[in-house]
Amino acid sequence: MGVVVSLDERLDKKSSFDQLGALTADDVKAVNNLIIQRVDSSVALIPQLVSHIVAAGGKRLRPMLTLASARMCGYRGERHIGLAACVEFIHTATLLHDDVVDKSDLRRGLATANSVWGNKASVLVGDFLFSRAFELMVEDGSLAVLSILSKTSAQIAEGEVMQLLTTNNTETGENAYLDVIKAKTAQLFAAACRIGAVVSERPTVEENALESFGLNLGIAFQLIDDVLDYSAKQATLGKTVGDDFMEGKVSLPVVLAFRRGNEEERIFWRRVLEDMDQSEGDLKHAIKLMNKHNALSDTVERARHYGAIARDSLGIFGETPEQQALLGLIDFCIDRAY
Amino acid sequence: MGVVVSLDERLDKKSSFDQLGALTADDVKAVNNLIIQRVDSSVALIPQLVSHIVAAGGKRLRPMLTLASARMCGYRGERHIGLAACVEFIHTATLLHDDVVDKSDLRRGLATANSVWGNKASVLVGDFLFSRAFELMVEDGSLAVLSILSKTSAQIAEGEVMQLLTTNNTETGENAYLDVIKAKTAQLFAAACRIGAVVSERPTVEENALESFGLNLGIAFQLIDDVLDYSAKQATLGKTVGDDFMEGKVSLPVVLAFRRGNEEERIFWRRVLEDMDQSEGDLKHAIKLMNKHNALSDTVERARHYGAIARDSLGIFGETPEQQALLGLIDFCIDRAY
Repeated sequence: MGVVVSLDERLDKKSSFDQLGALTADDVKAVNNLIIQRVDSSVALIPQLVSHIVAAGGKRLRPMLTLASARMCGYRGERHIGLAACVEFIHTATLLHDDVVDKSDLRRGLATANSVWGNKASVLVGDFLFSRAFELMVEDGSLAVLSILSKTSAQIAEGEVMQLLTTNNTETGENAYLDVIKAKTAQLFAAACRIGAVVSERPTVEENALESFGLNLGIAFQLIDDVLDYSAKQATLGKTVGDDFMEGKVSLPVVLAFRRGNEEERIFWRRVLEDMDQSEGDLKHAIKLMNKHNALSDTVERARHYGAIARDSLGIFGETPEQQALLGLIDFCIDRAY
Repeated sequence: MGVVVSLDERLDKKSSFDQLGALTADDVKAVNNLIIQRVDSSVALIPQLVSHIVAAGGKRLRPMLTLASARMCGYRGERHIGLAACVEFIHTATLLHDDVVDKSDLRRGLATANSVWGNKASVLVGDFLFSRAFELMVEDGSLAVLSILSKTSAQIAEGEVMQLLTTNNTETGENAYLDVIKAKTAQLFAAACRIGAVVSERPTVEENALESFGLNLGIAFQLIDDVLDYSAKQATLGKTVGDDFMEGKVSLPVVLAFRRGNEEERIFWRRVLEDMDQSEGDLKHAIKLMNKHNALSDTVERARHYGAIARDSLGIFGETPEQQALLGLIDFCIDRAY
């Protein structure tokens, strides 16, 4: 993408996430404790399995959204801790269920957490976490929160099914792709933020503003995630490149490169993503075509667009440290691409 | 099992289920309509897939428990319809997730609904139904019901994980087996019944009585199901025999035959269920050993024990047609074995 950032700028960008981390540190600690406590089960395999995934850490980005949103809304109680844990449970259940592979995937040699525990364990432990999330919500007692998160869960499942349908389909357009990532990723960001306003008993206009912030941040986040899957920069983050490619996922960089390509290029895309006939050098060639058509840099531009909407959504809130940290998160999400 | 039943008796037994069916016929129709309505999604694959499973029918045994329990408690409203649909959604989600197979299962050549749609679709549509169940509960608005069914869902997941751990383990004892079937099967029967009292706003003693009825009925139901998996009588029901055997499940008939067997027999059980080294004739030999040790008939006797507890649980209710139909269900569940 040809953008060069100096080391100083990089540090600034890192600090935009650290700012949120520092603000929510105590709350995140309480969330982590609650998570460990609530995954306990007389069936010892469950906490064992979960400890590898949920208790081991991760950025806790989604629960942080609930925590910071609630604090920005002036909330001073403790309910946001339990609800942030719910959000993380739902997220982890989704990850576990996303790990489930089909026979065809096994042939392609995909390796996930699943390969250690097996499909069945991934499904069942996901179900357990999902149920625990609802138990926690019931204890909290807010039907408004239960309504938001049950609806969001259904949308996530719909989004994942939509993704199944767009996988291996190079005809997928930008709108269909957007529908997928809104449902499978952005709705949980939106719900996580909105809950912060609900728990603070703020007016609907603030609920809606936080929902819009989360939704657009989530879209931007997923767009950049999809760019990173084709970006050499990934190596520095300790992540692998080419997973989406290997799975035949049709993400926006593919959509753009396919639509902007000539017939010869489309034949290539169909071979590697529809027929799943991939050989060495194909991933490199795919990235070359993407760069030729500015598919990666334009996907980042699209992310900036949603980031801008997210930014304006928070305009109605006063300039508090929490608001600044949430705004900084937009930059953090987008700047991961560099 | 050597019990001969005349044709007349068989008809009587069939009618014990029909009695419940007749009493709840209108309500079941309403439940079916609601189910079809609530599995609708803009993602067309979801209703398509679900229509093969949930909308196609099945006995609707679990929702019937909610419907009949509510009516027995004198309930005259409409909330039991939505809650019965929730129970069926949770049951169907569990079935779908139970269909998910591991690589090792594929090697063994298991064929389920899953083999048509794939693991991923089974998981995601299950998640969708599970979320829809909670959406319906939220609309109903009872935190008591939400608490019962979220707890039950977690227990089901725990039971399924426990079952993973007892599979291929011939050391499994009767208590461990009971823990599994209580959690994976009987708790949903218990919840389905209890909800009937909750929705009718009956005193706790009636809630508990219905829960006990459901729990013990569910245990009896699963015990007989496990007998049927080794029973030639299955063929007449159009079901296959030997699924549990092929999967290496250690159900009570196996537990009893293993414990009552000699060393040579235990070597056989370990080979076929632990090493999963099965050849033609092994299933027949397994059934022969079970009959030698009365493992099948004694499992039916165990089921009668739980059936008797279920019967007494309903003693505090007056002799209404609903009570009689629920009592008849105990006989129906157990008499399937003949």
